[in-house]
Amino acid sequence: MSCRQYAVQVFNGPTARLLISAPDRPGLVAAVAGFLAEHGASIVEADQHTDHEEAVFFQRIEFLLDGCDLSRDALPGALRQVTDPLGMHVVMRYSDEIRRIGILASRQTHCLYDLLSRSAEGELPADIAFVASNHPDCAEAAERFSIPFHHLPVTPQTKDAQEAAVTALAEDAGVELLVLARYMQILSTDFVEHFASQVINIHHSFLPAFVGARPYHQAYERGVKVIGVTAHYATADLDQGPIIEQAVAPVTHRDGPDDLIRMGRDLETVVLARAVRLHLTDRVLVHGRKTVVFT
Amino acid sequence: MSCRQYAVQVFNGPTARLLISAPDRPGLVAAVAGFLAEHGASIVEADQHTDHEEAVFFQRIEFLLDGCDLSRDALPGALRQVTDPLGMHVVMRYSDEIRRIGILASRQTHCLYDLLSRSAEGELPADIAFVASNHPDCAEAAERFSIPFHHLPVTPQTKDAQEAAVTALAEDAGVELLVLARYMQILSTDFVEHFASQVINIHHSFLPAFVGARPYHQAYERGVKVIGVTAHYATADLDQGPIIEQAVAPVTHRDGPDDLIRMGRDLETVVLARAVRLHLTDRVLVHGRKTVVFT
Amino acid sequence: MSCRQYAVQVFNGPTARLLISAPDRPGLVAAVAGFLAEHGASIVEADQHTDHEEAVFFQRIEFLLDGCDLSRDALPGALRQVTDPLGMHVVMRYSDEIRRIGILASRQTHCLYDLLSRSAEGELPADIAFVASNHPDCAEAAERFSIPFHHLPVTPQTKDAQEAAVTALAEDAGVELLVLARYMQILSTDFVEHFASQVINIHHSFLPAFVGARPYHQAYERGVKVIGVTAHYATADLDQGPIIEQAVAPVTHRDGPDDLIRMGRDLETVVLARAVRLHLTDRVLVHGRKTVVFT
Amino acid sequence: MSCRQYAVQVFNGPTARLLISAPDRPGLVAAVAGFLAEHGASIVEADQHTDHEEAVFFQRIEFLLDGCDLSRDALPGALRQVTDPLGMHVVMRYSDEIRRIGILASRQTHCLYDLLSRSAEGELPADIAFVASNHPDCAEAAERFSIPFHHLPVTPQTKDAQEAAVTALAEDAGVELLVLARYMQILSTDFVEHFASQVINIHHSFLPAFVGARPYHQAYERGVKVIGVTAHYATADLDQGPIIEQAVAPVTHRDGPDDLIRMGRDLETVVLARAVRLHLTDRVLVHGRKTVVFT
Repeated sequence: MSCRQYAVQVFNGPTARLLISAPDRPGLVAAVAGFLAEHGASIVEADQHTDHEEAVFFQRIEFLLDGCDLSRDALPGALRQVTDPLGMHVVMRYSDEIRRIGILASRQTHCLYDLLSRSAEGELPADIAFVASNHPDCAEAAERFSIPFHHLPVTPQTKDAQEAAVTALAEDAGVELLVLARYMQILSTDFVEHFASQVINIHHSFLPAFVGARPYHQAYERGVKVIGVTAHYATADLDQGPIIEQAVAPVTHRDGPDDLIRMGRDLETVVLARAVRLHLTDRVLVHGRKTVVFT
Repeated sequence: MSCRQYAVQVFNGPTARLLISAPDRPGLVAAVAGFLAEHGASIVEADQHTDHEEAVFFQRIEFLLDGCDLSRDALPGALRQVTDPLGMHVVMRYSDEIRRIGILASRQTHCLYDLLSRSAEGELPADIAFVASNHPDCAEAAERFSIPFHHLPVTPQTKDAQEAAVTALAEDAGVELLVLARYMQILSTDFVEHFASQVINIHHSFLPAFVGARPYHQAYERGVKVIGVTAHYATADLDQGPIIEQAVAPVTHRDGPDDLIRMGRDLETVVLARAVRLHLTDRVLVHGRKTVVFT
Repeated sequence: MSCRQYAVQVFNGPTARLLISAPDRPGLVAAVAGFLAEHGASIVEADQHTDHEEAVFFQRIEFLLDGCDLSRDALPGALRQVTDPLGMHVVMRYSDEIRRIGILASRQTHCLYDLLSRSAEGELPADIAFVASNHPDCAEAAERFSIPFHHLPVTPQTKDAQEAAVTALAEDAGVELLVLARYMQILSTDFVEHFASQVINIHHSFLPAFVGARPYHQAYERGVKVIGVTAHYATADLDQGPIIEQAVAPVTHRDGPDDLIRMGRDLETVVLARAVRLHLTDRVLVHGRKTVVFT
Repeated sequence: MSCRQYAVQVFNGPTARLLISAPDRPGLVAAVAGFLAEHGASIVEADQHTDHEEAVFFQRIEFLLDGCDLSRDALPGALRQVTDPLGMHVVMRYSDEIRRIGILASRQTHCLYDLLSRSAEGELPADIAFVASNHPDCAEAAERFSIPFHHLPVTPQTKDAQEAAVTALAEDAGVELLVLARYMQILSTDFVEHFASQVINIHHSFLPAFVGARPYHQAYERGVKVIGVTAHYATADLDQGPIIEQAVAPVTHRDGPDDLIRMGRDLETVVLARAVRLHLTDRVLVHGRKTVVFT
């Protein structure tokens, strides 16, 4: 498995990725760029953003490890010599790390099949460690792709225990991201805080329109001319998490609730996959209720 | 002015347009189609829709007057012989009627300039009878296009009188549609009920998201990745009227409130103009909180 | 299998669908509508279009079989009494017919996985009879979904024989549609004429831009800011067949050929599935180089 | 006029903008960032791109002049000390420079009215110095906005002289950009090379589809389901210039050539205005046949 080529490794050799946030001040760019130049690191991609209202600086830098005169072991410590004095918070990841994710689903399988197919094709920059569900319906899909399936039913009385089981599953498998592929259970505050910015949900409406249940029916009742879906990090406030990606499609008076559900299906699969990919290629920074997404 | 060719008169000669709604039952299509065939009328465009939940039938038929053996005077009565027994509600309009509209604006001029320009080019299928505003800012725009401008300031104390002045203006000018081109005043229930389905507003958000004031700022605060605008008929419930048209644009973390306002500007002009055109070409049927739009 | 509920059967009971084309003349709508009313058939959906340049009339009518006083056997003959004298060409299909399709693929599996997943979910209004390919790469995907796979390699020398094998496969299986799910072989004129309007291809560009090989690379070289894909019926003129559906996505200077390929992947799966669905729900009429698509 | 606040001046005080291109090599980012940090310049926006195929580095940096310890006079020379040794090509502009543009049009006025309206509202980050046309039709539009209009008719025999007149007009007025607002004349190679990357055209098709004349009619004949428009720099090869911006809209079989023209109108105005704005805010770098657009 370790020799698998993910579609995202497009550069000549492995890269390191820095995700930086810091109180804004002059010299931040120069400090990191100077450090990398000094150590012979070639930047292959860089992007930055300043939130001028809150005076916060964000940056993503990806550079080739080949040519850099620091080892993977030495790199973090050396970098901190530069970034700590400037109050910079830095996350460093390597493009050749094997990432592992877990998928939670309920009865519907379209997002699940999409993720399984992408994984089978090497399109998903991660291994799927397991599929878990509160219903047995998704077992067949997981089996078709030889991914372990766990049936973890839930009732109001067993919610705590079920979430504990999911947590154990995720931690045993060493996953760094849980993907809610139309998982129709409300997660407890404890759970989402335990996995802060590590749970991506697909909500089947263009948030903040139509929060809550049956959003396609709500959209039909309101007579909107555009429907949408939203991928976001799960937070304690339902449907309020930082939005990673949204997409929309035009609809007309001809489209009944079933049509909206069917059309939404294609939006959901694409938007969820896109959000998962953005997360796994280290392109998303959470900033309060919002995200900075370096595409 | 009467010989002006509007861009919408694309058929050989003037047409009549029927906008029909009726309780659904077999034979509705046959009845009207049979009547038109019998009188030699060539259908140039037809569309229909059945709301199966509420069992209501909607239809728009456009047919050439040339070839039809009934005069404009005789047509409505003859048609009613067929449609009344079937419980059909029918509105008939002619494509060569001169339509007149009034525009209400406040300080911003982009929607106003857009409508004035389209009118000057013969693109708007109506004459603009007047521009009225609670501020003097739009006077220059109206003057540039030689359209009468009325400054009708409003305070909480004078709201009734000001709306009465608008009503008088509209009725004296014989307008059949009032276009709120970023008119930032809340209309009274009496006013919108007096002009039911005759007032089109452009709301600068993707309704039902971000109702109320400063929607672009709300969108920025929420961190959405798509913004939108909504053209709808004004009703007593603010921002709740039947939606005619919506459009959206992608945004990113880079876009501050000013950027959203600027990007929204282009959505607003296009969507408002489209809704006005749909209304003036008799393509919109209001059905409760929703519209049927035959494009 | 016969009791499977397809997602498209949304009406109360099975329906018949008429796809009509005819030289335009007054009375066409009345004739068919009158016939249906006379026999107690409730129209649940109807749409029509007149090509005024060529004076051709098109119509799609869907009506409930329950309530209609004619049997399925008697219906076609009775209808022809009305439509033949008016020069109407009519195709009649039933919503509860089991449709069968065959899929041709090459090395890439994303469109194939998408169709297989939709089929497994009951989202595809047809059964997939087989997957055939000139390469063995797709065998695993087909096996995962228990669909027969046929490896039919092809060389310039064996092209005729291979196409004969595909034809035999299609006819033995009784499929009515061949779906080219990124099948990278040029079909012979004989083949596409044999299966006229029965072969749907997904071309990975926004036709007519970038015909021919490696369109994403062409798009990259040209520096376009939008990419697209096209689902069309295969014809003897390569990339010139009647277009059923197209979709596009914005790109930037950051997107290299690999990015365009990856982004195009999602467009291809969605647009191909949409075109297949439109065809299988009897919504597409071919009209010379163009299509009329009643959505 | 000099105190006019353009909508684009969103930062606290005037800024300088650097548009950099250079052969790629380590240390480029560090060099410029180090220089700016050393002189106390606060970066308010920065973006960069590396074309890995051709090993070319591009960057746009915008920084506050307030706080920078170099005067506007001293800045360029000091910066060159850093950038010349690294082979960097740098364009520096100031956000408070008054820009001037000229507009060329023919008979149609929609793009012209749009630019005039934006200018009147302070939305266009430039002054319109003149409108010139080979037809008199646009005179009224220019007059309404009190912009000088020049009627410069052209025949094959007078083409050289007419272009000389346009050139003189542009140079006398000190414009830095010529906007072809549906100017239906083919410009000579001499002319476009004289104004290289200084002439923006709006082509009414989704290039490279439908080059040449009457693209909407071509699109109609081909039966496409999406139409588009393209803003690009004019080059000697007609319709082949570097693309700045494109946009598209879905169409159906119902839309005849007149409908496509009408729908395209809205795309043209928005896309041309967007391209002009991108150019005038120093966000576009031309790179061979392509552009790098830092949005």
